[in-house]
Amino acid sequence: MSERPVINTIHVQASRSYDVLSGKGLLEDIGEQILRIGAPKKAMIVSDDNVFPLYGRKTAESLARAGIETGSFVIAHGEGSKCMTVYESLLEHISSQQLTRSDMLVALGGGVTGDLAGFAAATYQRGIRFVQIPTSLLAAVDSSVGGKTAINLEHGKNQVGCFYQPSMVVCDTDVLKTLPEEEFRNGMSEVIKYGMIGDAAFLERLKKVPSGEWIEEVISHCVAMKRDIVARDEYDTGERMLLNFGHTLGHGVESCSGYEIPHGLGVAMGMAVMTRASEKMGICRPGTSEILSEVLQMYHLPEEAPYTPKELADAAMADKKKTGDRLRIVVPEEAGRCVIRSIPAGELVRWAEAGSMNR
Amino acid sequence: MSERPVINTIHVQASRSYDVLSGKGLLEDIGEQILRIGAPKKAMIVSDDNVFPLYGRKTAESLARAGIETGSFVIAHGEGSKCMTVYESLLEHISSQQLTRSDMLVALGGGVTGDLAGFAAATYQRGIRFVQIPTSLLAAVDSSVGGKTAINLEHGKNQVGCFYQPSMVVCDTDVLKTLPEEEFRNGMSEVIKYGMIGDAAFLERLKKVPSGEWIEEVISHCVAMKRDIVARDEYDTGERMLLNFGHTLGHGVESCSGYEIPHGLGVAMGMAVMTRASEKMGICRPGTSEILSEVLQMYHLPEEAPYTPKELADAAMADKKKTGDRLRIVVPEEAGRCVIRSIPAGELVRWAEAGSMNR
Repeated sequence: MSERPVINTIHVQASRSYDVLSGKGLLEDIGEQILRIGAPKKAMIVSDDNVFPLYGRKTAESLARAGIETGSFVIAHGEGSKCMTVYESLLEHISSQQLTRSDMLVALGGGVTGDLAGFAAATYQRGIRFVQIPTSLLAAVDSSVGGKTAINLEHGKNQVGCFYQPSMVVCDTDVLKTLPEEEFRNGMSEVIKYGMIGDAAFLERLKKVPSGEWIEEVISHCVAMKRDIVARDEYDTGERMLLNFGHTLGHGVESCSGYEIPHGLGVAMGMAVMTRASEKMGICRPGTSEILSEVLQMYHLPEEAPYTPKELADAAMADKKKTGDRLRIVVPEEAGRCVIRSIPAGELVRWAEAGSMNR
Repeated sequence: MSERPVINTIHVQASRSYDVLSGKGLLEDIGEQILRIGAPKKAMIVSDDNVFPLYGRKTAESLARAGIETGSFVIAHGEGSKCMTVYESLLEHISSQQLTRSDMLVALGGGVTGDLAGFAAATYQRGIRFVQIPTSLLAAVDSSVGGKTAINLEHGKNQVGCFYQPSMVVCDTDVLKTLPEEEFRNGMSEVIKYGMIGDAAFLERLKKVPSGEWIEEVISHCVAMKRDIVARDEYDTGERMLLNFGHTLGHGVESCSGYEIPHGLGVAMGMAVMTRASEKMGICRPGTSEILSEVLQMYHLPEEAPYTPKELADAAMADKKKTGDRLRIVVPEEAGRCVIRSIPAGELVRWAEAGSMNR
């Protein structure tokens, strides 16, 4: 057994309250941590075929040491698994294993695994507990916290899901350090988003000090920001929408690429386009897009989408953030401050055009 | 236009509060009623191939008069439609019709329609509004109120769902009066359940006066009882379980019959078995099973299941009301009073045996 790890705890207050633990080597003691929230008899580990071979055994052994019976359900990695077919298979599997309302799902993986397992936990027997173990930076700072679960429909990402909070989030930063560079970049895009929507000093520090050197702090800072927003607007009817900065056009990018371009890179492109557009329209303080650009470059993130403004806007339109014929978009006013604007859905293309680097 | 109908309103206080309206001829004004809760741009009517031909047009026309754009999604009648395939088709349909978070589903039908449409509403874009228009007595007095939505898995009824409250329930008692006798009996079983779990005087009156003669009052009384229970235990962790009286073995009956025996008849059998068992075990006041028996007979409801105690218990076990290795059952102490007991799951068969008429 390793030395007792230093655990950073952030308490999230929502319809269900829970702790987000982060620190080095936490996976080793995941079983013990879970006992603190009330032992399930069985825990089903949901993971993908990239992550499970690396961390599945360690997780299962830790659970077993805590006296919890475990099983596993391994999905193919990638966005394709966030579909109705895999959702149904997972449910049939846990039903065949006779999981009950006092049992638990453990999502070991990135955003896809967490979103899928979370939706299954939210709906199996009208809700069983689930624990998130994010293994990607993106999942650690964003998708594992806040209770948005979802799968995709044929036309449209995250069209089906629930607001359903996890019972605990455990982030082992040693695991994140084994991420491929590509995955790390993907997560940094969401990290930068937090700076843009609410903390210019954080953004500044990200530009000066490579995040890998203070990753524990970076994660806690992002989780704490998200915690505060979720506490004030769990069901995404107002302020929480700020977390969608860069996401409307970002989803458009993902969709245009057939989900070949990962979420984080889409968000980076979306943020860059929106910030340039906002500056060009005189809404945003001059120089903001330059600040964002420098941080994006520091982390090798893209600043322009490989699609026309019209392609982007049309693809984004199929997405669900519009209400009736209007669309709410997140617009930067300066680094560290964004606002939500309601625009006629048809105007999105104007924003995409104004933010294009080719204009 | 008809005369202004007399509307009986019961207000339900839950995570989402809403009104249950009942009265003669309410369907005519459904559009106008919906405007009171905030007009959707679009409303998708979900109904089955029995009900839609009878009331679909009337509903759509009323909505149209209120300026609401309508569409429809018609499912095959019967329990078979409460499945993942139909759920997915419904979601893909409303997605293709570009329903947004400000739009609405309207469930026009019985329990199957309401459960399916409710689950789709609960999960489409993480929740859009839905209105229940129960067209069966069972749906009117039970499934349309309280926010339990669900579909079935291969092995087990209602294994997947959400707690998700409707935005309004509108019960047109004229519609209920056109029910086939069989459907009416099915609902009377749930009506009798309310008497057994909480109101001996109501049970007594049901025995003396055919319910068809005071159906408006019968419905309001049941809805008010359910409202009170749901207000105290929305998420079914305690008292709400009383509403499951007769349901554990009742689901066993349904399952054994391949869902050929309707829900209400299964519940009648389940209540009768549990009451006889409770009396035989000395828990229940002597004579209670006789009281129940008389009411069941009055409404031509069955008192014995056509399966062995073991078959019933095994089938009931696959159901979800057990927690770990224990099972909570609802046991009558006298007419109008039931209690919840936790028993080892393996003991259910003893209850089924004790309550069998062949012993």
